[in-house]
Amino acid sequence: MTAAKTRFPAPAIDSLPDDIRTRILAVQEKSGFVPNVFLSLASRPDEFRAFFAYHDALMEKDSGLTKVEREMIVVATSAANQCHYCVIAHGAILRIRAKDPTIADQIAVNYRKADITPRQRAMLDFAMKVSRSAETVSEADFAEVASHGFTDDDIWDITAVSAFFALSNRMANVTSMKPNDEFYMMGRLPK
Amino acid sequence: MTAAKTRFPAPAIDSLPDDIRTRILAVQEKSGFVPNVFLSLASRPDEFRAFFAYHDALMEKDSGLTKVEREMIVVATSAANQCHYCVIAHGAILRIRAKDPTIADQIAVNYRKADITPRQRAMLDFAMKVSRSAETVSEADFAEVASHGFTDDDIWDITAVSAFFALSNRMANVTSMKPNDEFYMMGRLPK
Amino acid sequence: MTAAKTRFPAPAIDSLPDDIRTRILAVQEKSGFVPNVFLSLASRPDEFRAFFAYHDALMEKDSGLTKVEREMIVVATSAANQCHYCVIAHGAILRIRAKDPTIADQIAVNYRKADITPRQRAMLDFAMKVSRSAETVSEADFAEVASHGFTDDDIWDITAVSAFFALSNRMANVTSMKPNDEFYMMGRLPK
Amino acid sequence: MTAAKTRFPAPAIDSLPDDIRTRILAVQEKSGFVPNVFLSLASRPDEFRAFFAYHDALMEKDSGLTKVEREMIVVATSAANQCHYCVIAHGAILRIRAKDPTIADQIAVNYRKADITPRQRAMLDFAMKVSRSAETVSEADFAEVASHGFTDDDIWDITAVSAFFALSNRMANVTSMKPNDEFYMMGRLPK
Amino acid sequence: MTAAKTRFPAPAIDSLPDDIRTRILAVQEKSGFVPNVFLSLASRPDEFRAFFAYHDALMEKDSGLTKVEREMIVVATSAANQCHYCVIAHGAILRIRAKDPTIADQIAVNYRKADITPRQRAMLDFAMKVSRSAETVSEADFAEVASHGFTDDDIWDITAVSAFFALSNRMANVTSMKPNDEFYMMGRLPK
Amino acid sequence: MTAAKTRFPAPAIDSLPDDIRTRILAVQEKSGFVPNVFLSLASRPDEFRAFFAYHDALMEKDSGLTKVEREMIVVATSAANQCHYCVIAHGAILRIRAKDPTIADQIAVNYRKADITPRQRAMLDFAMKVSRSAETVSEADFAEVASHGFTDDDIWDITAVSAFFALSNRMANVTSMKPNDEFYMMGRLPK
Repeated sequence: MTAAKTRFPAPAIDSLPDDIRTRILAVQEKSGFVPNVFLSLASRPDEFRAFFAYHDALMEKDSGLTKVEREMIVVATSAANQCHYCVIAHGAILRIRAKDPTIADQIAVNYRKADITPRQRAMLDFAMKVSRSAETVSEADFAEVASHGFTDDDIWDITAVSAFFALSNRMANVTSMKPNDEFYMMGRLPK
Repeated sequence: MTAAKTRFPAPAIDSLPDDIRTRILAVQEKSGFVPNVFLSLASRPDEFRAFFAYHDALMEKDSGLTKVEREMIVVATSAANQCHYCVIAHGAILRIRAKDPTIADQIAVNYRKADITPRQRAMLDFAMKVSRSAETVSEADFAEVASHGFTDDDIWDITAVSAFFALSNRMANVTSMKPNDEFYMMGRLPK
Repeated sequence: MTAAKTRFPAPAIDSLPDDIRTRILAVQEKSGFVPNVFLSLASRPDEFRAFFAYHDALMEKDSGLTKVEREMIVVATSAANQCHYCVIAHGAILRIRAKDPTIADQIAVNYRKADITPRQRAMLDFAMKVSRSAETVSEADFAEVASHGFTDDDIWDITAVSAFFALSNRMANVTSMKPNDEFYMMGRLPK
Repeated sequence: MTAAKTRFPAPAIDSLPDDIRTRILAVQEKSGFVPNVFLSLASRPDEFRAFFAYHDALMEKDSGLTKVEREMIVVATSAANQCHYCVIAHGAILRIRAKDPTIADQIAVNYRKADITPRQRAMLDFAMKVSRSAETVSEADFAEVASHGFTDDDIWDITAVSAFFALSNRMANVTSMKPNDEFYMMGRLPK
Repeated sequence: MTAAKTRFPAPAIDSLPDDIRTRILAVQEKSGFVPNVFLSLASRPDEFRAFFAYHDALMEKDSGLTKVEREMIVVATSAANQCHYCVIAHGAILRIRAKDPTIADQIAVNYRKADITPRQRAMLDFAMKVSRSAETVSEADFAEVASHGFTDDDIWDITAVSAFFALSNRMANVTSMKPNDEFYMMGRLPK
Repeated sequence: MTAAKTRFPAPAIDSLPDDIRTRILAVQEKSGFVPNVFLSLASRPDEFRAFFAYHDALMEKDSGLTKVEREMIVVATSAANQCHYCVIAHGAILRIRAKDPTIADQIAVNYRKADITPRQRAMLDFAMKVSRSAETVSEADFAEVASHGFTDDDIWDITAVSAFFALSNRMANVTSMKPNDEFYMMGRLPK
């Protein structure tokens, strides 16, 4: 019902460069559908490639943070930025990775009240400060998060995930990127 | 894992005044479980009675607003106030009443991007202003919402629902009221 | 001079349900005038009954908080919410109950600079956080207010009064509820 | 009860430079008491002289703004800055000059709801923007206030009064300047 | 003097993967020094590659926006995010590209007061909304920027540059990335 | 290009009262140009005299704060208030007085990341609180700044400089006061 949805139309898959079409078809093969972020960004192949290279470097590689922790950061900061696509899609991924049907909604609504460990809470406090007022991050913030066992490398990761989704949330909000309907139910029922 | 959860323990149902125990058992009969808001507030019988009398006057009676519209207001304003209980529980009610498995999550994350009508958008814009900065509500705001067909009586209802959940959100946040697990899945699957 | 004042006209007293008319006449008998909040809300009898039942449960019953302390909370939070009716009317009540002609104005302008005790200051700090950002109330806030001798029951009361006037301030602001002229002078001169 | 009150003690009147002592005694003669702002600032004679020279240039000279209008600006902006001394003292002056016992409290609590003319409302909207976010004042703001008959010279005056009290409010807040008790009642009773 | 500066030390250039070392040496060859952003990010080769691929796609390729316009967006949004590295380094680039020694400082301090065209002002208004509150970007914002001749493709570019520097500003602020001394003077003197 | 620049035209120097013309010519003699603040304010002789008397009392006299420290306060708070004239002109003065070509830009962009001493950082933290939320300055703030060796007299000076430029920033922003081109380069090159 809002006109914004067609302002930045997704290109036809057939029209895409080979590497991008291949990646999209691989995702479709694996997930059973094409998450809209792949289509929305495909109109700009160079940006698409950089975006997913960055995403994969942060979200898929080995890290001192678990994949569950990284998805928690995405959900918490994307909720603060009121990003439909990222909260719904990464909420689904978080439920699946954490094997917990309620954790994503809890973190999205108010991470301070979520059933998480003190270590996770400290991680999200730091991530939220990066996301919302990075200019005020201070030695006291580093000391607090480090006191929960996070190394400098881990703190870089918390920062980089928060920063990357600061980018992602803005692209999704301005382009009115819609989450696929499939995401809403993923991870809510026991397998 | 957070100590706050036991600061304001719910009383035993058997210890409650008859009218309150009766109401709680009736809800349990109908819903199959006792929503935690009934238990959390039961430690203060007079406040319990006033709270639910107010709630029912606004949410259950006939009104120029549909029940779906009223639940939309609850979800949008409670999300802005980051209230676990109200977003999760009323999100469930909204899904059921709207027969729409995604509308509640959409409104909770960013009502401006939700698949709603221009009339609903105008209603939520007004409700959000009441919820977040009622001191600035102006004639221009009244004119805008009225231009979508809302009468003065309807505007009172939008205001009263927003105001009542301003109260409710604050009680739930400070008492760390938890939504029952049942709410998370309600209304997500076709009947 | 502002049109808002007649958008939600008060009903004629004669047209009201018996219980409401009786309550209003009793207040008039006691106070010498009818505070406008009674007239403004009377157009909705069920809401009127719930509102005053809630109000009386919080403001009139026995509590670990004195009536002066409860009125301080009302004045401080209503000033933050810029509510004409509540600041002026409850400022009058606070002056009378505290037998202090300047305390209400001091708290309304900046409670941090008011001539109050450290215990009252801690109470108002907690109340203001409930009123303005309840989603961030933390264990540290509970510990701070508890260190001044407030029990969990008292903290509930601080919260509930702040929350109730979050509702009340929003209704009064949107309906442009005017304080009666009588309130401005009450409690300013020695009896 | 708060230690801040003695951090910046007022000097003894006898110890002051002649011109300052003379001015203070003249005010005392006229008003019956010495407003605390004169004592608080007297510890810095050069700042005292500049402060009152500036004040008098803006508040006492002829202007396209009436003295009532200028005091309205002081009360509205000082309330937004939560300045005890300025709201209470200039509230008294406004009541006296406007011959209106309720206007100052109305403007202090929420100028948008005060019984003022559309012209006064436009003036206060502009003044509040100067006071709170001068960096965003735009051609649209100038056009709006000019549409109510304010000349460029008047707009300078609105700006200068708002700006001067931005200074004054900060000095009074940090030095915990207390309004004299006399101000609270001034202008509330008919002469 | 602040410990943060050594928390994330730059790796030795010799230790870097070939492609990264080559790129850094090429920049050094061209600029006469290695901008610190290259060293700061080099400790994470995959992130380095994605970051600069993204940067180049947005800032170096052909676009409906001139390079001057794109640098204006970087300076304005990075100033709002209080990012040392980005304001100083891209301020230098903006001065050089615009052949204007004062434009960068003007935009950094308050772009609303800078000597820019109405079209540039509209572009920066949109960019700032993306940077600071993308969740509220509306059809009215699209219409306003489009009325200055920006196409949908241009609006994507404004958005993407703002979004990319939302990421960049956060990384630079948390890692306390310092601008090289060379940047401060670049473009200030006629060639 | 913005019409605001001619709304408040500077008067002709020849038309000014003797004392003001004399002061302006003396500044021109010393600096080689007339800083625009002198011309902008000269249309109001009484305000001009008070403004510069206040300025000189705070910025030129002996004080527990060095002139470098005072200029740091001006630059930091004026940057927060987004004031073109004050950031550019006082940035120049700070560079000259500190004999440091980068310190002003560092403080203007983000004083928390500038190469300053812990004592200077504490001074700026206090100054920024005065500038942005003086109503919340507390005993804890006084204790923190005092712990760095600042006396009560020094704290008055920090406060007064911050407060004076709260005034100055608002006048400059609303009148669109432009910094002279000369300021941009002053103090950037070794003498």
